[in-house]
Amino acid sequence: MRVNLVLTGFGVVGREFVRLLQEKHRFLRRAYELDFRLVAVGGRGGFITSEDGLDLKILGDAEPGSDSLETFSKNSGLPLMSTFDQADALIEATPTDTDSGEPGFGYIMKAIHHQMDIVAISKGALVRHYDTIFTAADANQVKLKFSGATAAALPTLDIGQISLAGSEIVSIEGILNGTSNYILSSMQREQVSFEEALKAAQHQGIAEANPRLDVEGIDSACKILLLANSLLGSRLSLSDVTVTGIVGVSSEDIIEASAQGKKMKLLARAYKQDGTVRVEVGPSMIGSDHLLSSVDGTNKGIVFRTDTMGDVGAVGGSSSPRGAAAAALKDLIHLYHTT
Amino acid sequence: MRVNLVLTGFGVVGREFVRLLQEKHRFLRRAYELDFRLVAVGGRGGFITSEDGLDLKILGDAEPGSDSLETFSKNSGLPLMSTFDQADALIEATPTDTDSGEPGFGYIMKAIHHQMDIVAISKGALVRHYDTIFTAADANQVKLKFSGATAAALPTLDIGQISLAGSEIVSIEGILNGTSNYILSSMQREQVSFEEALKAAQHQGIAEANPRLDVEGIDSACKILLLANSLLGSRLSLSDVTVTGIVGVSSEDIIEASAQGKKMKLLARAYKQDGTVRVEVGPSMIGSDHLLSSVDGTNKGIVFRTDTMGDVGAVGGSSSPRGAAAAALKDLIHLYHTT
Repeated sequence: MRVNLVLTGFGVVGREFVRLLQEKHRFLRRAYELDFRLVAVGGRGGFITSEDGLDLKILGDAEPGSDSLETFSKNSGLPLMSTFDQADALIEATPTDTDSGEPGFGYIMKAIHHQMDIVAISKGALVRHYDTIFTAADANQVKLKFSGATAAALPTLDIGQISLAGSEIVSIEGILNGTSNYILSSMQREQVSFEEALKAAQHQGIAEANPRLDVEGIDSACKILLLANSLLGSRLSLSDVTVTGIVGVSSEDIIEASAQGKKMKLLARAYKQDGTVRVEVGPSMIGSDHLLSSVDGTNKGIVFRTDTMGDVGAVGGSSSPRGAAAAALKDLIHLYHTT
Repeated sequence: MRVNLVLTGFGVVGREFVRLLQEKHRFLRRAYELDFRLVAVGGRGGFITSEDGLDLKILGDAEPGSDSLETFSKNSGLPLMSTFDQADALIEATPTDTDSGEPGFGYIMKAIHHQMDIVAISKGALVRHYDTIFTAADANQVKLKFSGATAAALPTLDIGQISLAGSEIVSIEGILNGTSNYILSSMQREQVSFEEALKAAQHQGIAEANPRLDVEGIDSACKILLLANSLLGSRLSLSDVTVTGIVGVSSEDIIEASAQGKKMKLLARAYKQDGTVRVEVGPSMIGSDHLLSSVDGTNKGIVFRTDTMGDVGAVGGSSSPRGAAAAALKDLIHLYHTT
């Protein structure tokens, strides 16, 4: 089956997705009978497009960023277009802006209008306009998957929707942000301050120059919000989530946790209480008997409490552009191949 | 959608499955538009059958065991039949016999002959006759799911087949048997001998009177074998698995593990080496940085090493008849409802 793709956003994750398409092309045809062709890639300056498929090798070798698309346009003679034409699916990988939800929201609504299926990696549009997007998608019979926006390689939606089918999810608890978990792990293991651990994480490319989304808990809040809306039936938005990040975690807090034989973790929680769904993010100490206590470094983890299967969770899926791109590829496979 | 079911085996898991069918009946209709009707239940003495559906309340309240089916027959006036008629699906929950694979094998082949889909909970038939069963199922376009035989509520096949789609699984490592994990956890936490821990587990109903399958590693071997055959493409049988159980784990071994800050676990492993798949089960010490190090008591866990998503695993799914029955119900839902 031939599937024509549009990719919006050519950052490190978008570029990694292009690399995976190339690296896995033969495997995807053999294992799933899927032949993906990238017909458009868009960045700040516009879209490069080709009905016959863009050269994945050239794009995969390029530096991430919109400038590479302009260079590609110049070198190939393909003009930069202002938008994309109808295709089979959109891979939405623009930077997350939790205030406006743009530019992802515009791209997603355009794809829905074109009846294109959607794999979202960026979170902004989903956390700002969840209801609008899903109402429009349903009305247009468009399928939308977003593993890449809910902890990427860590299977969260999969477990909630598939592995727990027939069970009732009572609560969700997760370590959903690899960067903040790495910082807390370093603070505890190496007995350094938050500032020192953050600087080291930035030096290693684990934390961004502007680490706000991660260390203030916003990224975790986006993920648990999307999980709650998908799995617990709520229709909450980001302002409904009580969020405390790890900026205020002191060396004394860490020493206290160690003294109690515990670990400090940034936990995201969603649960039903008095008929409503509550969602919150904040630092907590967890003991060695907690299923997530061995989730250290950039690893993530999630535990679902259920009525019939006890506690079931996932661990691992260490944060990386490759992992996020692989999660999007997984979603894409499931849009067109049923196992 | 109406789905007529045959259940073979009325032990604790079979009875729990009946209870779940009753408890979840309304929910399953609402959430998945599935209306399951139990038309036959078979035990050692024969089958009770009813085209209109057997009374789930009476069966769910009965003691587990074939005798209850005979009592049901007497009280209801329904005669015991020698076998079952064609229906939509078979739930195979007879006791696991890894030597003969019977009686499950006979029931499974009969179901395939009737073009009934199958949800297997018992392992004997699958580990003895994997190739025969799947060849026949393919030839008859029969779907067969067996989450209940591969660690039940712990999502193992789901993650391998669904969450890791597009990735290559390099190796699988798991704590797949709740009983032996409980015994090892007790030995380490309470500093008791294997015999004392086993006796306590038997007293609590966690270990069976004849604990051979669990403590000799055979149950773990069955599960990792089925995972390897399903996910790594092998066609191995039980005799190909190198198995060491926990019977030989001494108090000294446990003390040594504790001294090193590690835990003793019964690990089941499958990996590719020199073009072939190797499968082995044996006790190992794992450090606190291992993703499975917080998997204690009757909990289970599994980690897949992949080429694109790093290490991804599942934890929890504590062993219980209810968890095993819920895993079978999940499989049944997926046979008839695609998300």
